Order: sequence, then C-alpha cells, then structure tokens
Amino acid sequence: MKKKSYLDIYKYFKEKIIVGNLKPGEKLPSLRQISMKNELNATTVLKAYDLLEQEGYIFKILGKGSFVNKNRDFSINLDNKLILERASINKNQEENLIDFSKDEINFIKLINLDLKDIIIKILNLNNNIFEEENLKGSKNLREIIADYLENLDIFISSEEIAVSNSSQQSLNTILKLFFKKKGNITVVVSDPTKYKALNLFKERADVKGVHLLKDGWDFKNFENILKIKKIDFVYESFNYQNPSGIVWSDEKKEKLISLAEKYDFYIIEEDNDSNFYYFKKNPKPLKSFDRVGRERVFYIKDLAKCIHKQIKISYMIIPPMFREHLDLEILNLETTPENLTQKILEYLIKNFFYEENFTKIRNTIKIKYEYMIDRLKKIDDIKLMHNPGGGRSLWIKLNKNIDEKEFYYLCKKNGVSFLPGGLFYLDKRVDSKFRLSFVGLEIKEIGEGLNIIETILKNIKK
Amino acid sequence: MKKKSYLDIYKYFKEKIIVGNLKPGEKLPSLRQISMKNELNATTVLKAYDLLEQEGYIFKILGKGSFVNKNRDFSINLDNKLILERASINKNQEENLIDFSKDEINFIKLINLDLKDIIIKILNLNNNIFEEENLKGSKNLREIIADYLENLDIFISSEEIAVSNSSQQSLNTILKLFFKKKGNITVVVSDPTKYKALNLFKERADVKGVHLLKDGWDFKNFENILKIKKIDFVYESFNYQNPSGIVWSDEKKEKLISLAEKYDFYIIEEDNDSNFYYFKKNPKPLKSFDRVGRERVFYIKDLAKCIHKQIKISYMIIPPMFREHLDLEILNLETTPENLTQKILEYLIKNFFYEENFTKIRNTIKIKYEYMIDRLKKIDDIKLMHNPGGGRSLWIKLNKNIDEKEFYYLCKKNGVSFLPGGLFYLDKRVDSKFRLSFVGLEIKEIGEGLNIIETILKNIKK
Repeated sequence: MKKKSYLDIYKYFKEKIIVGNLKPGEKLPSLRQISMKNELNATTVLKAYDLLEQEGYIFKILGKGSFVNKNRDFSINLDNKLILERASINKNQEENLIDFSKDEINFIKLINLDLKDIIIKILNLNNNIFEEENLKGSKNLREIIADYLENLDIFISSEEIAVSNSSQQSLNTILKLFFKKKGNITVVVSDPTKYKALNLFKERADVKGVHLLKDGWDFKNFENILKIKKIDFVYESFNYQNPSGIVWSDEKKEKLISLAEKYDFYIIEEDNDSNFYYFKKNPKPLKSFDRVGRERVFYIKDLAKCIHKQIKISYMIIPPMFREHLDLEILNLETTPENLTQKILEYLIKNFFYEENFTKIRNTIKIKYEYMIDRLKKIDDIKLMHNPGGGRSLWIKLNKNIDEKEFYYLCKKNGVSFLPGGLFYLDKRVDSKFRLSFVGLEIKEIGEGLNIIETILKNIKK
Repeated sequence: MKKKSYLDIYKYFKEKIIVGNLKPGEKLPSLRQISMKNELNATTVLKAYDLLEQEGYIFKILGKGSFVNKNRDFSINLDNKLILERASINKNQEENLIDFSKDEINFIKLINLDLKDIIIKILNLNNNIFEEENLKGSKNLREIIADYLENLDIFISSEEIAVSNSSQQSLNTILKLFFKKKGNITVVVSDPTKYKALNLFKERADVKGVHLLKDGWDFKNFENILKIKKIDFVYESFNYQNPSGIVWSDEKKEKLISLAEKYDFYIIEEDNDSNFYYFKKNPKPLKSFDRVGRERVFYIKDLAKCIHKQIKISYMIIPPMFREHLDLEILNLETTPENLTQKILEYLIKNFFYEENFTKIRNTIKIKYEYMIDRLKKIDDIKLMHNPGGGRSLWIKLNKNIDEKEFYYLCKKNGVSFLPGGLFYLDKRVDSKFRLSFVGLEIKEIGEGLNIIETILKNIKK
C-alpha cells in the first residue's frame, strides 16, 4: 500500500470536520498517535495539521493539542449539502437515477420541436442578432410578451416588462429595490415555500411564514403579523404553489391585494404554473387582479421551467413607480440575457404559444399526473397532502413511524431521488414530507421509481 | 363627487414629488389651504402629510410647514440618470453617435471569425449540448480555462473555477459570501474605480477609497485605513485599471498580498486587460503572485469584454476554502450560463487563444491607441492623465476654466458620447475628468469624434 502523504491526512480530517464526525471544540488525535498508527513522520502529520489550521478548520493550544474550530463559517449546513448533492447529481449524469426532483417542463420536446433547428432558423432569419443591446430586453420581445399576457387577463404596457437570466435573478433584482430603500426589510412567505427563494430572503431579510390552508393563506395568522410589524412584501406562487400544490381562491387573491393597499406592502408573484392545469379551467394569476394605477404586484415567470431548462430567461412585470430604479439594478447586476436567447423566446411565443399546443401538453402531463395519484394512493405509509389538479409536483407525507432520513437515503441508494420537505420550511423542520415532481419523467420511469419506493417502505423498520 | 380621502391627498402629492413637479426643499401647501380647497377636515390632510413624512417624501419644520425631502431615495440621482441614458443610447441604435464609452473588444471580429458560423458549427458538433447541467460550468470548459491560465502564470485546479453570466454576477456572488459571514462589511477600492462595481458595493458595504499613484496604491493612505478598521476585501483591476489605465508594479502587487495576510483580508482582482498591452511585456495578474495553500485572491474575467459583448459569460477563481459556499450561492442565484455559451467559450479558447491571434489583435488596437494619444496631445484644454501603453481607455482632464457639464452636453448634442469622470469616484466628485474608450471604434470614427471635441473646445466659453 502506498504510504500516506500529508495531503491524505489533511483530507481525512477535513472531511471528518465538514460532515460533522468531528464536532466544534473536539480534540484531534495527537501527532504521535497518528504518526504511529500510519507509520508516518511526525513532521508529515504536523504539515497536515498546519494546513488545517491555516484554512480555519482547527486551532492549536500550546501543550494541549489541536481542536476543531468553532467558527466554522467555511462549512455549510446539512440542508444545504443536500441541495448541492442534488445539483451535482445532474452533473454526473447518472443514467440510472430516477429523479423526482426535476421540475422543468420541456415545452419544445412536448410539441415535437427541436431546439437546435430553432436556433439555426433564428440565426438565418436575423442578421443583426449580435449587434443590438437592450437593458430590459428587446422592445419586440417585450411587446410580444405583453400581448401574450392578455390571454391571462394581465393588461400592461411593454415598458413594465424586463427580462433577466433566471427567476432567481429577477427576484434578486426586485429584492435590491427594497433593500435600497431601507436596510432592514420584512418578507412574508408561505411556510413551506420554494427553497431557493427562501434562501435568498433569509440572507438579509426578516422572514415570516404563514400557514397555508386548502384555498390560500390563513388570513388570521397573516393579519396578526401585519398588526405587529410593517412588512415590505409578500412572495408567493398562487397557482399550484411550490411545494404544496395549493391554488389560492379568487376571493383570497383579491383579499391579499386589498390588504396590500391597506397595510402598504407589495406582492411578488412567481407564476410558472398557471398554464399547467389538468382538469378545471385555468386559475387566474394574482397579477390579473392588480389595480391599474395602484399597482401592488410584481410578477415573475421562469421560462427555463416552462419551455426548456437550457433557455435561461425569465421575465418580470414591475409596478411603474419602480421602473427607473429597476433599470439601474439591471445595469449594475448585468442580468440581461443574450440576444439569441431573447430571440428564441420571441420566436416560441409568437409561433407556438397557442391554446392547441398547451392543450396537447396538458393532456400529456395529465396522464402522468393521474398515474402518480393513482399509484401513490395505493402505497401504504404515504399520504397525499393535496390533490391539486395541476402543476408539476405532488406533496406527500410519510407515516410518522418511519424514519424519514433513513427512507430518503435508502431511496437514493436504490436510484430514486426527490426533495425532502424540510428544505421548504423556514425552520427546516423535519416533518416527514417530500416533494415528488412528475413532469420531468416518463410514465415508465415514474412506475419504476414508485415501485422502488413501495418496496423500500415495505421493508423499512417501523 | 366623492369626497377625497387622506389617501387621495397622499397620492396626489406623492406623484407630484416623484415626477418632480414638487422639487426637493420646496414647501407644500399648508393644511388649512388644502382642507379649505377640498372641503376636508384638517385632520384628514394631516393624516396624508403624516404618511408622506413616514415614507420619507417630506419633512416638517415646526411652525414653518412641510417640505419636500432632499434624500429622495425613491427617485434616482443625476449620476445614475446619466448612466441609464448611456445604456439607452445603444437601445435606440443611433447610427450617427460616436460612442467613446463602449469598451468591449470584439476578439471574434478582430481575427476574422463569424459568431453565427461558430454557433452553427458547435451545434453540429455537440449532440448533448442541451442535456448537460453543471452548476459551476462544464468540467471540460473549466479544465480548458485552467490550462489556458498557465500562460498567465496562474496555476490552479479546475475545481477552483466557476463560470457565471457576467463579471458583475461573479462579483455579486463573491459579495454574498462575505455578507453571509457578517452583515456589515468594509471594502476598499481605488478612487476612482469601475462604476458598476462601486454601485454594487455602496449598496451594502462601507466603502473606502485609496489614492492611486503611477504604480499602484498610495500604501501610506491604505495602511492608515488598515490600522483604523478591519477590512474584508479589496477590489481592483491591477493592470490598466478602469478608468485610470494605471498598471500596478510587481512590488506593489506583492506588497498587497503580504498585507492581506498580515491584516487578514481578501482581494478581488478583475482582470480583463492583462492581454491588451501594446508596447512592453504583458503585466502579470495579481493572482499569479497568490500563495498556494494560503490563497487570498479571487480572480474575475469578463469574457463579454474580451471576446464579444453578446457572449455573456464570466469566470472566477475562488480560494479553496470558499468553494462549497460558492456552489450554494451559484445555485441560489441561478447564474450558470447556458451550455451553448459555455461551448462557444470552450471552442474559442481551445482553437483561437494563441499568441499569434493576440499579437494580431494587439497590433490592430495599438494603431488606434497611438492615434488617440497623438490627437489628444494636440488638443488644447485636454490633459492626458496617463499614458498606460495598454488597455481600452484613456483618462483625460479638461482645463479647469471649462464648464465640464456644458462640455459634456455639447458633445452629446453633436453626436459624441463618453463617460464623465464623476461616475467613477466614491463621492461622485466633479473634477473635469473623462474616460474615452477607443477599442470599440474604428480609426475613422475616432478621428471624427476628436474633431468634434476639438471644435467644441475651441468655441466653448472659458
């Protein structure tokens, strides 16, 4: 066996510290212990310890030894590790993994188009595509978006629209507008809510959570917050909320806007799902209830989630009074997408955003949805939290007598991945919930994945 | 007619203030005047004024009345208006404008390539281009960047590299790492410095400026800051600094890194210009002086500035201990560029980032540079601040007896645009300096632009 180098020793302890096997304040083995056990020079071990100290993992007390540092700002917490782990799953392109965490709808594939063909067509049609430069997106694109939005009962001018690279970038840009006004802001979200939005808010804002009922917020709970504290804005997906799947009633949507006027706060609506209803009529975006001249609603749409994950573009609608500030933030943050990406979106909205296509897509996804619901209902130990009739995910709960962490890791070990509910809660609480997205998988994969889950649940100790 | 509510009054004045009908310092009508005119209770009007005061639109002086607030954070200031104006110039594609503010180098055009051809070639070569997903950029791309960086004496592993949409996004991501550690951070920059970076920092950090000498910072000035306050990081472009054009000496570069170790701060180097030297040997990036195992330097390169403004991609090198946190920020901010953009960069570095091509480009730009210097020297009333021998801009100063604002607007009126120096200063001070970029213009345009400037200077009142 190859003799261990100081880097091996270094990596061994670094990993133990990061994953938490060695806790803050805990003493590391002495140089003598390690060098004897590994048949190494004490200087080799010393070198490893020096490096660990330099990088802030440990500190030394003369005559006492080395200890794990308490201020481990270099290590991220376990929930975040989980998220990163998931993100790196895609990286490795694990062929066998059935990934219920993917929630992008591939509009292009679902209506039998090919992204490569589209790009080549656009390049051949547009001569000046690499010359133009538009901070908020090309005038053309913004007008086409404004026209399209009329289908959703949203009537705005193209000047109120700005595009960016991603919905998180749109959110970040809007956030900056509020932070600029005052340093300390208060944000209210559903508890649970989209974890990336939560992560962004929690960094700098005081975040309050409101309990979700079947038709939207528990307004008693919300008004209690409003009475105690001036809030700056509310963030929510009102139709097929992420992760719960809940659709707000029209009454509650209107009520929220009234409260926004009364208590002087704004609302950020992220709406990626209004189009993806499988039974009833389409639920209306909150923005369609907004009052002209007294606008309270910012509206964000993430096209990477609705068209293709590699078309990284998002648009937002902003109330007129924020317009000038917004332009400045876009300039400073440099979030304008490339012209080519803008042209792709323009081309798709103009030529393919028609009811027939959406109906076709809804019918395809509906089959997956119904299959999921059917299968999940038959699995003991799993409770379906809601039956949303739309959207991209189902929100489920395990029986209390099952160790949810063990379940999660067993599934992963057996090739099935999804998102643990804790990620979506303000306090990251572990309450046996999980989000299973079905829109990114084929029926066959869904079946196999649920088979594996079922088998694991049968054999897990309870 | 319905009787006006306090909210009507409030909105009426708020709008007048926002659109500028009521100017900062201007007195609002007295309570009595308004209540009489509108047949309202004085308390109703008082309520409206109270709200305006709470929201920072007005302030009250006892016994004198209510006045429009000077700190109107809801409206953007004049400098920012100027920046936006410039950004919207491109939007309108004014054919006749000679724009000395454009500072992107079109590498693709300068070596006679065509971006459209490149994209089609890449699409035809790569089958899975729309399937992959990599948070920090594809492994391939990162390895090619790491290899290329060896030419600049930067030796790092591909794991230390992460790509993003733009250099401002890279900067914003790094900023978040520091903000997460502690809420209140201190940043030190050159005064003057890149205005977009300044804008980003000023939003949330305590920003200190250091005076620039011909070979880098005035270290006496800097050490005075270090002794008084713990700083978190320094931001600078060390080679052909933006806007001054100054190149730091190797001694000062090394000294800065020593100070970073001594006083425990980090350094963010934005390096878009090391390759664009026209006379002497290439200046070394600060990152090449960084000490392995004790890294202090973050390195950012903006490819939109170096290859083509429509290839919106930037990469950064981050010290190993920040790696995990960085991954998380990239995930939350969703700044990963599209695969196609990544592939374009990969293709260009692999096939065209060779000395011959850079030499060719340098020779082309050198002609513009020498022509600019020559012509500027002959214009009375203009002083060239430095003769940098590289980079993309010249930093000039007008004679004191000329009104710089009048000069700026006369130039604009006559079809010549550039950036006023005030944008680059911490205190936005007006000191008759201007930045003229020459890399984005043809010799003929430069000549015409300088003719117009010369004529204006001859006729302007002094």
